[in-house]
Amino acid sequence: MMIIKTVKNILDANDRIAQDNRALFDAKKVFVINLMSSPGAGKTSLVERTIEALRDKYRIAVIEGDIQDTYDAERIAALDIPVTQINTGGACHIDGNMIREALPNFDLDGVDLLITENVGNLVCPAEFNVGENMKVMILSTPEGADKPRKYPLMFHESAAMIINKMDLLNYVDFDLEKAKKDALSINPNLAVFTVSCKTREGFEPWIAWLTSQLETFRNSRP
Amino acid sequence: MMIIKTVKNILDANDRIAQDNRALFDAKKVFVINLMSSPGAGKTSLVERTIEALRDKYRIAVIEGDIQDTYDAERIAALDIPVTQINTGGACHIDGNMIREALPNFDLDGVDLLITENVGNLVCPAEFNVGENMKVMILSTPEGADKPRKYPLMFHESAAMIINKMDLLNYVDFDLEKAKKDALSINPNLAVFTVSCKTREGFEPWIAWLTSQLETFRNSRP
Repeated sequence: MMIIKTVKNILDANDRIAQDNRALFDAKKVFVINLMSSPGAGKTSLVERTIEALRDKYRIAVIEGDIQDTYDAERIAALDIPVTQINTGGACHIDGNMIREALPNFDLDGVDLLITENVGNLVCPAEFNVGENMKVMILSTPEGADKPRKYPLMFHESAAMIINKMDLLNYVDFDLEKAKKDALSINPNLAVFTVSCKTREGFEPWIAWLTSQLETFRNSRP
Repeated sequence: MMIIKTVKNILDANDRIAQDNRALFDAKKVFVINLMSSPGAGKTSLVERTIEALRDKYRIAVIEGDIQDTYDAERIAALDIPVTQINTGGACHIDGNMIREALPNFDLDGVDLLITENVGNLVCPAEFNVGENMKVMILSTPEGADKPRKYPLMFHESAAMIINKMDLLNYVDFDLEKAKKDALSINPNLAVFTVSCKTREGFEPWIAWLTSQLETFRNSRP
């Protein structure tokens, strides 16, 4: 019971910081994605593909969240995109305060789209707002179609589910229709996309949808 | 700082309960595996294969840990093996108290090997002892070879790493030698096995090693 109370206090404190972050992002017209998935589902690869598709149109920045190491951040820096590494030091998610402390590393007046890549984890990241416009999650085909039912919060909180590693569909036991159906039963508003970061197939609908979300946000700001 | 202190207190309290569990398992001569991995890496499939290989030699029981649902427990129950489901209700790991509360569901005098399948998560499960003889982790080839460096605690705490989904090795970018080398640099004592739960290949060394660990334990008890 004590533990539950502590966790609730932590979440309340986090929400206040996330709201401050959000107010800053609104003022600076920065659209923010909080990207989540299991370890190895393809978060960094999706960020790379999204940068490739949108870098001529929008100014993009990235925050990489990892327990330790800077491997993912180095991949993004190699694309000549502003990137900051958060090392959570054991914590299994990023939170509003970690993002707040990372923001002085960027010139937000020069950023249209900020992608925060969370720690690889299907559980806790969904509990912590960081001030994002939307959460986006990746489900990869080798993980199996039972994941929406087993980790429902992540599917409930996300605006979009990107099913990655479609190139492996013939080699794994993944029931694509079941995964979509179960995810939509948890969250009927979920936008669903199927891609392969490896073969680069399927990205047009995701990029078109993201562009539309981003433009709607920009048009809503003075 | 306050948060860190709270977490430390939780871990200390957990360790005391885990020690009580351990004393009970010792008295009853029950060998306990705490099985961990990312979501969808193949924990339940590995439990199924291990049951098939050892059920004629040892009396096996299983505790399934999931955020919610009973899907994995139903798979084990279909094998006519005693199984108890723990629903963590949002928590991203099982802990000593959850195991303690599950134990009255079993006749421990009739159990030689108890496998506890943790919540799918590469981070927090490694922090919580449950009174196990050893932690075992699964890394699946689609997750990528960078996982030891990104999630070192899990590799550090485990006695064995089972690399699963070897049937996909030709279809994914997985550097097997790098994964082994990085894992062993974190934990030189790690026993490493390569298997495919799908094709059932590679299980003999894992089963032989587990049998040897189990027999060593049994022979050490009066």
